[in-house]
Amino acid sequence: MRVTDPDKHQAKKQMILEAAKTCFAEQGFHQTSTAQICTAAGISAGNLFHYFASKKAIITAIVEDDRRQTQDFVAVLCEGDDLFAALNAFLDGVLDMAADRAQASLALEIAAEAGRDAEINSLYRLSEKAMCAELEGLISLGMERGQISKQFSASSVVHCIMVVVDGVFSRVSVDPQFKPQEEKAALKAMMTGVLGLSNGGEAQK
Amino acid sequence: MRVTDPDKHQAKKQMILEAAKTCFAEQGFHQTSTAQICTAAGISAGNLFHYFASKKAIITAIVEDDRRQTQDFVAVLCEGDDLFAALNAFLDGVLDMAADRAQASLALEIAAEAGRDAEINSLYRLSEKAMCAELEGLISLGMERGQISKQFSASSVVHCIMVVVDGVFSRVSVDPQFKPQEEKAALKAMMTGVLGLSNGGEAQK
Repeated sequence: MRVTDPDKHQAKKQMILEAAKTCFAEQGFHQTSTAQICTAAGISAGNLFHYFASKKAIITAIVEDDRRQTQDFVAVLCEGDDLFAALNAFLDGVLDMAADRAQASLALEIAAEAGRDAEINSLYRLSEKAMCAELEGLISLGMERGQISKQFSASSVVHCIMVVVDGVFSRVSVDPQFKPQEEKAALKAMMTGVLGLSNGGEAQK
Repeated sequence: MRVTDPDKHQAKKQMILEAAKTCFAEQGFHQTSTAQICTAAGISAGNLFHYFASKKAIITAIVEDDRRQTQDFVAVLCEGDDLFAALNAFLDGVLDMAADRAQASLALEIAAEAGRDAEINSLYRLSEKAMCAELEGLISLGMERGQISKQFSASSVVHCIMVVVDGVFSRVSVDPQFKPQEEKAALKAMMTGVLGLSNGGEAQK
């Protein structure tokens, strides 16, 4: 019996995922063959199927990977003292990601696939729900601490932030003139409209 | 030779378009057959082709129709005295449209088709550009009149507004909990973050 080192196995799996992400971002899920993924990863077809049973299994793993990364990102933000600043850092992260053509294309491919495939859809929705719940927790805490305005419910604020997140990715795909990083100040000012304390306190800075 | 009344011809064409819109919103462009459009419009296949050469010609006409309606809508807003109020009315219109499942589905179908078909894409881009130019004109005028903050360029403000417009349609499609009309106040407060005069003038009301 062959004994595999779990760390090595995981590292190789991750390497294949990264190669697949590059292919998917460039060509879309459906236009990418497993043969192309193997070439990009520098492995044989037999070797690929040792790690992933199918192309769909790779897509599923990418959605799960994406979910873990987003959760880790929001979890780190929640540790900060100033949660108004944490949400601004969150928006910075979103804009940097949207400015990266490959990441933006991959995010849009995932969203489109979620519209076509029921299994990917439920994974995607799960990921979305988890992110919204984390954001709502962060916002509620910021409201308690007096760092975020209580003018609207935490749930309304989450909806507004998600409108901005989705809108940024959509604009990147339809408008070549839209450069997300160049609009950081204006988009932050917009977010402050719903987060900021009207008494000119901390959250207005 | 048969003589057709141009008004009657136009009215029937519009009636077929409306029937097609309903079918497309319910089932998507590609899942709708011309036979289904004929049934919905109560006409024969031969009659349909008297008005539209193909299903794609119907889709093209819908995109052009959509473009004309949006331009008319923005043109009416530009006539108002208070352009900060006009932009709030614009957002109201967008949120009402997004709340209408059929209209929201049709808008998303058009955007998706623009990603697949080059001809629809250039029409869609033309329509987008026209709307952004109209909005930019409105915002510049509002800035001159002191109704809209000059903190950001008119072009940056347009980008922010389009982020909100696209984001609202995207959230409607992915999040059943998101009710655009219930978030009017929060979304307007957000827009005021980028439009509003910081000296507490008119634009803050």
